[in-house]
Amino acid sequence: MEHTEHTTTVDASQSIVWELLADIESYPSLFSATQSVTIVEGSPEYQLAELVVDVSGELQSWTTRRDLDAALGVIKYRQLQTAPLVQHMGGEWRALPLGPNRTQLVLTHDFAAKQESEDGAKVAGKYSSEEAHQLLADAVENNSVAHLAAIRDVCERRAEVTAAAGTA
Amino acid sequence: MEHTEHTTTVDASQSIVWELLADIESYPSLFSATQSVTIVEGSPEYQLAELVVDVSGELQSWTTRRDLDAALGVIKYRQLQTAPLVQHMGGEWRALPLGPNRTQLVLTHDFAAKQESEDGAKVAGKYSSEEAHQLLADAVENNSVAHLAAIRDVCERRAEVTAAAGTA
Repeated sequence: MEHTEHTTTVDASQSIVWELLADIESYPSLFSATQSVTIVEGSPEYQLAELVVDVSGELQSWTTRRDLDAALGVIKYRQLQTAPLVQHMGGEWRALPLGPNRTQLVLTHDFAAKQESEDGAKVAGKYSSEEAHQLLADAVENNSVAHLAAIRDVCERRAEVTAAAGTA
Repeated sequence: MEHTEHTTTVDASQSIVWELLADIESYPSLFSATQSVTIVEGSPEYQLAELVVDVSGELQSWTTRRDLDAALGVIKYRQLQTAPLVQHMGGEWRALPLGPNRTQLVLTHDFAAKQESEDGAKVAGKYSSEEAHQLLADAVENNSVAHLAAIRDVCERRAEVTAAAGTA
């Protein structure tokens, strides 16, 4: 299992960042690869959601479970039905206050790719174990950077609107 | 000016992490390249410290100013007298609570390398502007990963000792 952590500072209040992170149905408007998100079950504490995502030009879908701890600012997620290359995919979104108008946004991943079977069958019909791991690791790296930037940009625009409204 | 952020999760309370971050005189025991740290001026809110550091086999020294915000868990630092390659070097150490025994440790850098002069004189007598930038960027990357890991390891050992003492 590989563990990664990515982070960025957001010039917006923790509540603005938390509200966007918790709103999984807004993710298709944030992340260009995410085609649709359907909440199958939901409460303030957890969500089961089905995602359809464009992975290198191929539509894939999986189900994710998210446990939300609003007091801590942490959303724990893990794929229940996994994507074709994925043995395990989980981690946390974290929104930690750095003062009234600044937030540390963190995204962690714990992941493992599927392995070739003992009789030599390739992963997803075409990849060696090493290739599957590398593809997954590259996707985690690229998506982490892109997703943090997308959330930061939307939150900072919302913070500007909020600040402008406050001084109007 | 380039901005970078590195982070790691520490399985220790925020107070354990904060106490170590604030104790700049302990840094030579944490970071193998740091030969000595002398506090020139100090208070609970700020420190002026002179560091002697082994930079690629060459001893360099500089003075750093650190502003400590214990309530926020943030130490802002910047070099006053800079190292030979450095035009600007500053950033923040952040220790943000993730529950009673878990902490998000973050290290940010804002930096710029010196440039060749208009009459073509090299940086530190031997580097082009691009080489100086790359050397500094590589040092920031390598040191960030190493420093976060060193602090995490010491804090997690202290947390184990604290937990063991608590159950004795």
